[in-house]
Amino acid sequence: MTELLPNHLGGRWTAGTGAGMPLFDPVLGDELVRVDATGLDLPGGFAFARQQGGAALRTMSYAQRAALLGAVGKVLQAHRDAYYAIATANSGTVKNDSGVDIDGAIYTLGTYAKLGAALGERRFLLDGESASLAKDAAFQSQHVQVPTRGLALFINAFNFPAWGLWEKAAPALLAGVPVVVKPATATAWLTQRMVKDVVDAGVLPAGALSIVCGSSAGLLDALQPFDVLSFTGSADTAATLRRHAAVAERSVRVNIEADSINAALLLEGEAPGSAAFELLVKEVVREMTVKSGQKCTAIRRVFVPQALYGQVAEAVSARLARTTVGNPRNESVRMGALVSRAQLAAVREGLEFLKAQAEVLHDGATHALVDADPAVACCVGPTLLGAHDADGAHRVHATEVFGPVATLVPYRDAAHALALVRRGEGSLVASLYGSDDAQLATAALELADSHGRVHVINPAAAAVHSGHGNVMPQSLHGGPGRAGGGEELGGLRALNFYHRRAAIQAAPGVLSALG
Amino acid sequence: MTELLPNHLGGRWTAGTGAGMPLFDPVLGDELVRVDATGLDLPGGFAFARQQGGAALRTMSYAQRAALLGAVGKVLQAHRDAYYAIATANSGTVKNDSGVDIDGAIYTLGTYAKLGAALGERRFLLDGESASLAKDAAFQSQHVQVPTRGLALFINAFNFPAWGLWEKAAPALLAGVPVVVKPATATAWLTQRMVKDVVDAGVLPAGALSIVCGSSAGLLDALQPFDVLSFTGSADTAATLRRHAAVAERSVRVNIEADSINAALLLEGEAPGSAAFELLVKEVVREMTVKSGQKCTAIRRVFVPQALYGQVAEAVSARLARTTVGNPRNESVRMGALVSRAQLAAVREGLEFLKAQAEVLHDGATHALVDADPAVACCVGPTLLGAHDADGAHRVHATEVFGPVATLVPYRDAAHALALVRRGEGSLVASLYGSDDAQLATAALELADSHGRVHVINPAAAAVHSGHGNVMPQSLHGGPGRAGGGEELGGLRALNFYHRRAAIQAAPGVLSALG
Repeated sequence: MTELLPNHLGGRWTAGTGAGMPLFDPVLGDELVRVDATGLDLPGGFAFARQQGGAALRTMSYAQRAALLGAVGKVLQAHRDAYYAIATANSGTVKNDSGVDIDGAIYTLGTYAKLGAALGERRFLLDGESASLAKDAAFQSQHVQVPTRGLALFINAFNFPAWGLWEKAAPALLAGVPVVVKPATATAWLTQRMVKDVVDAGVLPAGALSIVCGSSAGLLDALQPFDVLSFTGSADTAATLRRHAAVAERSVRVNIEADSINAALLLEGEAPGSAAFELLVKEVVREMTVKSGQKCTAIRRVFVPQALYGQVAEAVSARLARTTVGNPRNESVRMGALVSRAQLAAVREGLEFLKAQAEVLHDGATHALVDADPAVACCVGPTLLGAHDADGAHRVHATEVFGPVATLVPYRDAAHALALVRRGEGSLVASLYGSDDAQLATAALELADSHGRVHVINPAAAAVHSGHGNVMPQSLHGGPGRAGGGEELGGLRALNFYHRRAAIQAAPGVLSALG
Repeated sequence: MTELLPNHLGGRWTAGTGAGMPLFDPVLGDELVRVDATGLDLPGGFAFARQQGGAALRTMSYAQRAALLGAVGKVLQAHRDAYYAIATANSGTVKNDSGVDIDGAIYTLGTYAKLGAALGERRFLLDGESASLAKDAAFQSQHVQVPTRGLALFINAFNFPAWGLWEKAAPALLAGVPVVVKPATATAWLTQRMVKDVVDAGVLPAGALSIVCGSSAGLLDALQPFDVLSFTGSADTAATLRRHAAVAERSVRVNIEADSINAALLLEGEAPGSAAFELLVKEVVREMTVKSGQKCTAIRRVFVPQALYGQVAEAVSARLARTTVGNPRNESVRMGALVSRAQLAAVREGLEFLKAQAEVLHDGATHALVDADPAVACCVGPTLLGAHDADGAHRVHATEVFGPVATLVPYRDAAHALALVRRGEGSLVASLYGSDDAQLATAALELADSHGRVHVINPAAAAVHSGHGNVMPQSLHGGPGRAGGGEELGGLRALNFYHRRAAIQAAPGVLSALG
């Protein structure tokens, strides 16, 4: 029997009492470890987090909590090699892709440590200037932000076991709110190990960080009105969470990051082989292949002027053909595995679904696997589809195939392009490629209402841009509609979710005494 | 048959095809008008609002839309007498109470007209400074706020037919988002008349303002992902709305303002008859009686040091005894009617429910009605209850009796007082009474996480404070937990709900071109 990973709840390590669910190596097929949450006292553990963890965090200033984040980052840095080994084994990712998750987590923690230090020795935040409510400002309104007195429950996705925890936990802990994370089972090992290292290092107050691995049964039942819930995953599960009494009746604040049919758009007027053209091709290939396309932010639809359809198809396909796929332990491999057989089946099924409305421009099935057994490994080559009938191919605009798959879509003119991008009904990110700054700015503003982030790549940004799919802690992560309507990160904006805003109305003497 | 009020949808006036629901005079019992929404083309009307109203509003700048609000305010001002007459007839309120609703609406419109004018000729808002994402700031992240391309649906409460519309519509229209309002049936007349006057005056673009009176059936089915929904009413209805597919599946952004067991707290150390003592007594009586206690923000629980329980009970009761109750057309009457027989029954039922855990300190049933027939009029005198067992009287902390009813609760010490206030599990407002500014400031911060607003009344504020229950457009209106978790008003903060935030990541040349 493989090791059963313990949960950390109520300030102690507790193994589930059930048999446990196994986690696998998606390349070799081996069982690695097991997780189980059977028999945990969730209400008791949550109460401990609120009462011990929350109270301890709230006695600290923002700068003190920022120092905690710095200490957490150091712990993770010290165990970095172990995390890469777990990622290779459990996520089947090449080193570069593991880095997106692991080093992305450490970078995000560091960013919030810096942002938090700048907030200083305060224990609450002033929100804007005071407004006068009486003659001579004898009575005023001052808004403040104070930490919510609940806990933050994270129900996370399988694709970012490291970053997915810390991009949420960093702002939560900085805000003074204790964290309980329920990682996706398929890749829970890395999350659990990181929590274990941080807890064992004793750098956080007791109750500040808890982890429950396995089933999510009962977690929402244990939520109370001042708790918050952050979910990353499918739209179906998101709807179930929103309908739970915790959210619907007890007003638990919820943040959802769900499906997203992100777009890349090559603007009009760019010649084949031009800088903008080449930047689009390069970014599309990168987004399709990094983490085998298992990123919520990956490019799913590529919009190009009709006249360039064939040339873009050729250029992207030529690059994709050079992508080596297989066992991430082989240094010649550029793209590792999908996370599980279930995901492999889902990607294949999604491809067939899209093919009914699209042609195959580059077929991932033509890629021979390197050092991997196709009967066992969850590996699949990258596939570029093309939808000549941009308006009629409704599946392309509504289906997120969570793997190395994108669809090329031709447009007639700028208005048509924007309308097609919006067919995604709300996405995390759209990227724009062009050389005319005014044209790019106009398009960026046009798409800002339906995308949490608009990433603009012009020749000036070629060497310095942060990448269509990379989520930078300085920028908002989230999107309206299909993408779930949430907001994460965005620098200090992330603290909003973990604070409650209040207007304090008082005479100036009282407001001065707030400190 | 009384008049059937038409709805305004799809840019035209349309009567429902059903028999209609009657609206009554709650003092005299007369039927006044009828409303009906049967047979309306809601999807078509909503599409018109988005496509005609939304597009027209978005072509305008904030300053231009602010001018629209100014024009709306002028239209309302011109018809003010008619609104007072409708309020008397349909809400049964005395002139002062009608003013809270009607003049409150006009004041709020005026405030947003001023705030909007200051935003100038922009068509989107910059959100903070840009952040560097590369060396030498060669690539940056700039957050923006742009109007959502949907409509704003308001499902409103009966107690503020005027203000309830305009406190939401002012920020929505200023943000460039068209409005559809569904007023509570009992008092829909005033809302409908105001919309009619504004539409007839032609001061808004077609599709910018619509109204559906009667049943809310089908309204949420017609919502799309970029629409927003704002609801004021019961927690039960709020839960139903949150579980609707529009919210749970289509990520329609929703704002809820629901039940609230607001508190007034006399701090320790204030002698009987002291300024703070008297300010508490005065404010409690005012809050219990204005609009017959039918305000979401009214004081429901009054916390005082144990030693002062008897003296506060006496002082409040003495003032309540002088409150004349009855027909608002009689100038000697200070407190008019509840809105309906259903509300009268609910208040009586709620009183009985609370009485099981509280004594009666002043009995509203002892008030003889002035110029009103008790068999017909929905009038009830103010009742002060008292709960000696502060901790055991859980009904007092969890039950909102929506009428002239409050409960006096004794506390042992400051920590006990704060814990008792928090038993409300999230409220719109708490007010504090004391003379020590530092003590008041500390208590205000302690309660800020569980209240959208903390109103501090010290002797310096006696003559100038804006009132525990008055919602000022400069301050946040909303509260966590039981209060629904929403945020309205708060000056320009109100625009957030009607905008989408996005990070635009680009080289400096593109960001400069945003305008």
